[in-house]
Amino acid sequence: MADETKAFEPTDRTRVRRSHERAAYDRQTVYDILDSGLICHVGYNIDSKPFVTSTAYWREGDRVVWHGSSASRMIRAIEGGIPVCFNLSLWDGFVLARSGFHSSMNYRSVVIYGEAEKIEGWEAKEASLKMFVDRIWPGHWDKLRPINKQEMKATTLLSLPIEEAVAKVRTGPPVDDEEDYDLDVWAGVLPIRQSFGPPEPDPRLKPGIEAPDFLKNFRLDRG
Amino acid sequence: MADETKAFEPTDRTRVRRSHERAAYDRQTVYDILDSGLICHVGYNIDSKPFVTSTAYWREGDRVVWHGSSASRMIRAIEGGIPVCFNLSLWDGFVLARSGFHSSMNYRSVVIYGEAEKIEGWEAKEASLKMFVDRIWPGHWDKLRPINKQEMKATTLLSLPIEEAVAKVRTGPPVDDEEDYDLDVWAGVLPIRQSFGPPEPDPRLKPGIEAPDFLKNFRLDRG
Repeated sequence: MADETKAFEPTDRTRVRRSHERAAYDRQTVYDILDSGLICHVGYNIDSKPFVTSTAYWREGDRVVWHGSSASRMIRAIEGGIPVCFNLSLWDGFVLARSGFHSSMNYRSVVIYGEAEKIEGWEAKEASLKMFVDRIWPGHWDKLRPINKQEMKATTLLSLPIEEAVAKVRTGPPVDDEEDYDLDVWAGVLPIRQSFGPPEPDPRLKPGIEAPDFLKNFRLDRG
Repeated sequence: MADETKAFEPTDRTRVRRSHERAAYDRQTVYDILDSGLICHVGYNIDSKPFVTSTAYWREGDRVVWHGSSASRMIRAIEGGIPVCFNLSLWDGFVLARSGFHSSMNYRSVVIYGEAEKIEGWEAKEASLKMFVDRIWPGHWDKLRPINKQEMKATTLLSLPIEEAVAKVRTGPPVDDEEDYDLDVWAGVLPIRQSFGPPEPDPRLKPGIEAPDFLKNFRLDRG
């Protein structure tokens, strides 16, 4: 287990050069952002050409984990241990300034560089998948039809250490040039939110099965 | 201008191998998805290592365009003309199946491979930035304090042809193993939506300036 109080050491890749006041290297900020997201974008190379795959991820302690079909190009490329770039970006609002140049977005993002490892063995893989499902749908894994041998074989899990990592955050109102504050232009923030539901039952759902409680007022960042 | 009726020719990179029924190569599907999104993820290499940057983009005919600080590593790496991967993913819902294996997400995504070009010249750059702003905030560009020389110089615009492109779409309820439909497990879709607002005025906003109409019932996919 990593020391939660220890900040990440900035590297050539993670050191934020522009708007560097937006950067954060402490583990708690990085973890909090990761725990509020669902879909990451993973960059990797095949034959020296860049690919980006978006996929659901989850955090397990000091690692991020994602999964895919064992036959997928992304999985087959990455499972051998090649450099990857993990990007999570959460967009919180439009920042309307009095000029186009100072208009911006509020966001929380995490970027992690490293090499992912395959999670091996039935028990480790099952524990990890359960963590994935129960994180989104608390307690739901044990209600599902259990995973079978064929499905487990067809599923590869990749785990990336959260070590070479950086968070970047922008919050608050626009920052305009001083002389622009006098202009007759509306300025402020338009918040962006994710909302969920209402649940749409499968047309083939057996009669009498109620939607689980966790689908009501669903949210990801339960904390 | 590209022939709107002509489908994209699948290449080794864009041919979808698994769940290939989800793939679409027709221009209209790709354009419709691009016109519903705001933030893309761009993959590229620096010193043969993968980087992924998330950024706002917009479509101009048969190209996607994004911008950044002329000093940013992303811009400096890409403006020279190197292979990039453009990924746009819109997540529409959680698909809760009766097994973990068949649980999924509904989504619309577009991936484009190619090399981006710098947009050169004041007029072309200004027209492009106006398109960017007015797409999100209709008519707002002309209300903003005009861009000045220094800002224009500090802003680089990159344009990527939509040629080697593929859309991937999943919709609808879960598809379970036939024998699982009899299980007492809730199954269906939990829709994911983006919502916006209410607008938060800048604390330094001049009194008497009303929020623009486009911020009320704001949406991106106005069509």
